[in-house]
Amino acid sequence: MQIIVNPPDGEWEELLKRPATEALSLEKSVRKILQQVKLKGDTAVKKYTRQFDDVQLRKLEISQNEISNASSQLSEDLKEAIVVAAKNIRLFHQQQFVTEAPVETMPGVICRRVSIGIEKVGLYIPGGTAPLFSTILMLGIPAAIAGCREVILCTPPSKNGTLDPAILFTAKLVGIEKIFKVGGVQAIGAMAYGTASIPKVYKIFGPGNQYVTAAKQLVQQEGVAIDMPAGPSEVCVLADDSANPGFVAADLLSQAEHGVDSQVLLVSTSATIVKEVIKEIDTQIQLLPRKEMAARALVHSRAIIVESMETAMLLVNLYAAEHLIIASDNAEQLGQLVRNAGSVFLGHYSPESVGDYASGTNHTLPTNGYARAFSGVSVDSFVKKITFQHLTASGLRSIMPTVTIMAEHEGLNAHAEAVRVRFKK
Amino acid sequence: MQIIVNPPDGEWEELLKRPATEALSLEKSVRKILQQVKLKGDTAVKKYTRQFDDVQLRKLEISQNEISNASSQLSEDLKEAIVVAAKNIRLFHQQQFVTEAPVETMPGVICRRVSIGIEKVGLYIPGGTAPLFSTILMLGIPAAIAGCREVILCTPPSKNGTLDPAILFTAKLVGIEKIFKVGGVQAIGAMAYGTASIPKVYKIFGPGNQYVTAAKQLVQQEGVAIDMPAGPSEVCVLADDSANPGFVAADLLSQAEHGVDSQVLLVSTSATIVKEVIKEIDTQIQLLPRKEMAARALVHSRAIIVESMETAMLLVNLYAAEHLIIASDNAEQLGQLVRNAGSVFLGHYSPESVGDYASGTNHTLPTNGYARAFSGVSVDSFVKKITFQHLTASGLRSIMPTVTIMAEHEGLNAHAEAVRVRFKK
Repeated sequence: MQIIVNPPDGEWEELLKRPATEALSLEKSVRKILQQVKLKGDTAVKKYTRQFDDVQLRKLEISQNEISNASSQLSEDLKEAIVVAAKNIRLFHQQQFVTEAPVETMPGVICRRVSIGIEKVGLYIPGGTAPLFSTILMLGIPAAIAGCREVILCTPPSKNGTLDPAILFTAKLVGIEKIFKVGGVQAIGAMAYGTASIPKVYKIFGPGNQYVTAAKQLVQQEGVAIDMPAGPSEVCVLADDSANPGFVAADLLSQAEHGVDSQVLLVSTSATIVKEVIKEIDTQIQLLPRKEMAARALVHSRAIIVESMETAMLLVNLYAAEHLIIASDNAEQLGQLVRNAGSVFLGHYSPESVGDYASGTNHTLPTNGYARAFSGVSVDSFVKKITFQHLTASGLRSIMPTVTIMAEHEGLNAHAEAVRVRFKK
Repeated sequence: MQIIVNPPDGEWEELLKRPATEALSLEKSVRKILQQVKLKGDTAVKKYTRQFDDVQLRKLEISQNEISNASSQLSEDLKEAIVVAAKNIRLFHQQQFVTEAPVETMPGVICRRVSIGIEKVGLYIPGGTAPLFSTILMLGIPAAIAGCREVILCTPPSKNGTLDPAILFTAKLVGIEKIFKVGGVQAIGAMAYGTASIPKVYKIFGPGNQYVTAAKQLVQQEGVAIDMPAGPSEVCVLADDSANPGFVAADLLSQAEHGVDSQVLLVSTSATIVKEVIKEIDTQIQLLPRKEMAARALVHSRAIIVESMETAMLLVNLYAAEHLIIASDNAEQLGQLVRNAGSVFLGHYSPESVGDYASGTNHTLPTNGYARAFSGVSVDSFVKKITFQHLTASGLRSIMPTVTIMAEHEGLNAHAEAVRVRFKK
């Protein structure tokens, strides 16, 4: 961990920069796979599954049998944990579905906005070293609350052509009925264009590696909506001298274990705390199964020591972390000053991992500084908000002069005529 | 206008297809301009303004003097109309800024979501044949309600280097202080990268031609957020035999006058109504100053006659129109069946033009079928919704088993440790 003390303003932007990703170099190969899936559908999907996942599949969709059997393969403790997490996530997301009252902006001019679930959505769950069933909760629950009619899930199969039972159990719990053993670029292509067995969707959600991310960006240009641009996961811990170094070290390590490209940033007003945190990291890391991975992520991580909490907040807001932990007795007050972050964890007993799994907030969040303009996934991400208006004849008459004079000044006379025609003769 | 009677299901998708745009062929030249603006800042912006707008500018920013003088150049009637429209738009958009109550998902686990305005946003207002000051209301008012701290506006200058006073008056009315006489790709580049005189923003809003649209898509790939993908404006009128053909004709014409590539679609259960609408179009079009433009847009427009309102609604939802007018005595009931549309106009006295200018709803809406997954611009578009959580020690203790068992099943032991460490010793 690199320690930087009181960096001058002019160096902040450089200091807080994320490592550049090499999306462009992937584009050509990703484009080719998408093209093949578009042209050849399931045949191409199966070919790439053989090539990249080393499995020869006859059927891409999981059977109802496989889904039903999943439950018996899991411990009762794990199932109960998933049920508790689902309950909390549902509770927190439920209030995000809003029914707005109509507004009569002028007598006889009644406007309203109605939330309607996006009809067809596709969820992508990465495979790899760990089965991310928690992400199914984070995407499937808001989709259900939003009222999306068709929710499908794609995730890569293991080498023997199966899926982790926790994936199947969780998907069933949140009401997802169509699950496909397809991963990578071919999954994104299948959901974007549709194949004989995988339905085309209007919006694609979920994390993934650089190939999946590049594929999502490419299909977005063809008109398929995506949840948000993605990058490596990151945490920023803001710690003053009330922080507990052992807690902070554990929080930084829990981010670092995600992968080599994980971003870990410590900002503190206390040099002593920073020193102790680093000491704690050295001790705690020894006990972790993924210690190699965490150690490599920590190599390019930084601790920045500043003189005041005011400066610290400016830095933190400029960085716009995916996860921001405020390890301070004054966490609530400092939280009021947050302008840019994905999700904020206040105080000494709010580790990021509770938000990752079970507290109720969503863990699909903007990385890479996107928190300056993007929100995390929520029920909002799964609805369209459609406006409606209904004018009475007298309402239209009273708004007529306003509309006609504005339309004519914009040179759009037919717009004015469309109002006037209603009162002619 | 092409008339199609009872098209079989299998032909719907083809029938409702929008004409393909040629975004890709523009990409190379757009990329070059963006690159130059990134490298050379104001120098490049001024060069392209000379080249494309035929104006040599010394200063890109409008002076406070020019803004103050704008008011005296406008008629009182127009100013009053703009003020009335602004009031309605503010009234309707105000309730979109929501303060959500915290949710205690489990005892001691308190989660909340807070809306915070995107700090820096850029609005693009196209120039061309008409000064679209109405779009300033539609973007500037929600930006102000959202609490965006820095709102800048770019719009191309006329050949004598000035802006329409209605643009300046409207911008001042909604509180925009920084206005730049810059249009086209160079404006998008300047707002995306920042120049000496034009600040870099986090999100870019506003309509534009194909070049502007391509530029927005390209900077989006570099991490700048944009409001939504754009395409030519469009209306779908759904008319049953209670519709007034003169009104419907006027609504179709008000869309057709936008430009040659405007999309106009009439769906009806009544062959008689369709016939009469076409007759009315032939009469009314003669009186329009932009009749050539409207006539050309109508050439590739379609009237589809179907046997039932059920079929009509299926068609309309598949089309996902930017603007949907339901010209029927049963508009309210039919409106309940809308699944995909940008904005819906109910009944015989709700022409699209009231929503374009003054009723209160937003006119920046998803075109090109994007209404299947995208909403129109609203206060939501100008905020990030940041989640916060604060756990008490006992709250964390009670959620601990849920988090640790899930984390371990995902192979993320440091995530589990980050909770356990808080209760060690």
